[in-house]
Amino acid sequence: MTTDFKLDITLTTQKKEIPPFDQLVFGTSFTDHMFMWDYTEGRGWHDARIVPYQSIPLDPAATVFHYGQSVFEGLKAYRTKDEEILLFRPDQNMKRFNKSNQRLVMPQFDEEFALHALKKLIEIDRDWVPNLPGTSLYIRPFMIATEAHLGVDPAKNYKLMIILSPVGSYYKEGINPVKIAVENKFVRAVAGGTGDAKTAGNYAASLLASEIAGENGYSQVLWLDGREREYIEEVGSMNIFFKMNGEVITPALNGSILDGITRKSIIELLKYWNIPVTERRISISEIQEAYNEGILEEVFGTGTAAVISPVGELFYNNEKLIINNGETGALSKKLYDTITSIQNGTAEDVFGWTVKL
Amino acid sequence: MTTDFKLDITLTTQKKEIPPFDQLVFGTSFTDHMFMWDYTEGRGWHDARIVPYQSIPLDPAATVFHYGQSVFEGLKAYRTKDEEILLFRPDQNMKRFNKSNQRLVMPQFDEEFALHALKKLIEIDRDWVPNLPGTSLYIRPFMIATEAHLGVDPAKNYKLMIILSPVGSYYKEGINPVKIAVENKFVRAVAGGTGDAKTAGNYAASLLASEIAGENGYSQVLWLDGREREYIEEVGSMNIFFKMNGEVITPALNGSILDGITRKSIIELLKYWNIPVTERRISISEIQEAYNEGILEEVFGTGTAAVISPVGELFYNNEKLIINNGETGALSKKLYDTITSIQNGTAEDVFGWTVKL
Ligand SMILES: Cc1ncc(COP(=O)(O)O)c(C=O)c1O
Ligand SMILES: Cc1ncc(COP(=O)(O)O)c(C=O)c1O
Repeated sequence: MTTDFKLDITLTTQKKEIPPFDQLVFGTSFTDHMFMWDYTEGRGWHDARIVPYQSIPLDPAATVFHYGQSVFEGLKAYRTKDEEILLFRPDQNMKRFNKSNQRLVMPQFDEEFALHALKKLIEIDRDWVPNLPGTSLYIRPFMIATEAHLGVDPAKNYKLMIILSPVGSYYKEGINPVKIAVENKFVRAVAGGTGDAKTAGNYAASLLASEIAGENGYSQVLWLDGREREYIEEVGSMNIFFKMNGEVITPALNGSILDGITRKSIIELLKYWNIPVTERRISISEIQEAYNEGILEEVFGTGTAAVISPVGELFYNNEKLIINNGETGALSKKLYDTITSIQNGTAEDVFGWTVKL
Repeated sequence: MTTDFKLDITLTTQKKEIPPFDQLVFGTSFTDHMFMWDYTEGRGWHDARIVPYQSIPLDPAATVFHYGQSVFEGLKAYRTKDEEILLFRPDQNMKRFNKSNQRLVMPQFDEEFALHALKKLIEIDRDWVPNLPGTSLYIRPFMIATEAHLGVDPAKNYKLMIILSPVGSYYKEGINPVKIAVENKFVRAVAGGTGDAKTAGNYAASLLASEIAGENGYSQVLWLDGREREYIEEVGSMNIFFKMNGEVITPALNGSILDGITRKSIIELLKYWNIPVTERRISISEIQEAYNEGILEEVFGTGTAAVISPVGELFYNNEKLIINNGETGALSKKLYDTITSIQNGTAEDVFGWTVKL
């Protein structure tokens, strides 16, 4: 991998209007600038540049359209009370990005340089980082195959881009329990597949099950393993945790679920608090049994978008498991408050997770 | 679904040079024009148009880049000795296209109108249809999600496009045995997933295994089922057939393999010839046993690109199964000759498979 570390900057001459921070909708408005970086086989990475946010022209035969070589990441920047801007564990996202690239036979990139470019981009679009409680700047780095070639082979050319979108709180009043359907017809990923890579196809595969769940009043699905349809994997865009009898358990990283950065942080935080936490295989039957015995105390999802998402109901095999009376549990709330306070700089960052711009 | 059936045509003012038909490389040169059709939620399909082949500008947040809503098809047009142009079972491709769209929560389109537009497009770029033995015009219809929105939901806007590429014979001398590695680490698709839809993510998932097989001298991999890694599925972009003891068998359509149009045609042809042909579950152990007993007579893949691709060697668990001395079998050859002769109009089309422009 050769990398040319020059970063060209072209500022926009037509600044857009920044949307009011109390009316932000997730992922619909984008800032004034974006980062682009080109990869050419034999030449490596070149032409790193920050340019005005704009459409990208692609040949209709660009392989991303046909053969799906596409990887993305998602992280957030927060504006503190002191007008500082904090990133939450961005090194972890860059590392996972490169790990996904490996699975998709896409080129590795220099993580430090990408992080440098990301910081520069946010600095330029600094005014877009919202400051209201629960708001943040959502950051979407992604890489796509751009070679115009019909043929199932890894592409020779790629583009790595970063775009930014100011987002509101995932839930209007901070944190609210969701209803989740356990999926036993469709499968998102299987061992040996791409489940642990953050690649477009995984999400495309998930849409139909989510649509059907949505029609039945469930906001997301909980995926079971593709082999036995018995072991719990993860939720659409969150990892999942169960609190039973005082112990917190979450599915172990098995190759078919995403190694979530919120998941990882929650585990570290629980250990720090001396709350027992275990990563292991968990069957849906075990959860049903724990529910019937009355020891299933809390269920929550973890992910960058919602941070912590308490689960008020699990629907499985025509049975409704109502968790904690459908209300946010004490631990879910404490985790949410702690993580978000570290993220927005109102609590001490004992773990060194945040990075100042 | 509302559909506006007007087809606008804008011809190019700068015709490209048509590459020499004896030097065609698969999927690298494209004709002068392309078809585009837009879908907008609430409005349906609109602005069907044939325009000069050109780049398409897409917002960096277009969902195809991030969440992989993308479906494609592949079929061919042939130029006959009498200067007629024949399509091979194009209705089947349009039908499968819509079936894939359903799985990916993408909109259905009017198949007859799309076929009408396709014929018109080929008519306009008629000079690009090559006439040498083994050559053809490869046709790539595809649909992508174009809405600029970060969020795992079906998009509101799509583009359906058709591009054309003159292609040479898949193998220089017509038909040549390939070496295939049986994949037992990676998985392409699993029951409940997207294996029977022609969507980008399936191909992205297949690249790493193909790369590794390639490094070991194998041109493609044979996928096993995702649950037990025991039952035979298909090859990278072909269905697979085995001839054992005079009987031809091929994996049944089980939801995780593609319903290949060549596969379907081969089955019809074998039945017409009164050669026993069975669609059923086949384990890799059964193939090993048949090989050891000396009754594995021929193995071949079927697909639009290569039509029939004889398999000369299967590599599984460190064992090399050499099939028919590594040579093209008599049945493989006969099937290849028959299908290609129907396709290019030199044999009578008793099945009514071909469609004249
Ligand atoms: C499939 C999937 N699982 C889990 C997560 C949670 O990961 P993270 O905590 O890094 O956001 C996400 C979101 O990134 C995801 O898309
Ligand atoms: C995964 C896969 N299987 C099988 C096939 C063969 O299908 P067809 O005969 O319709 O080309 C293809 C190619 O289209 C394919 O991509």
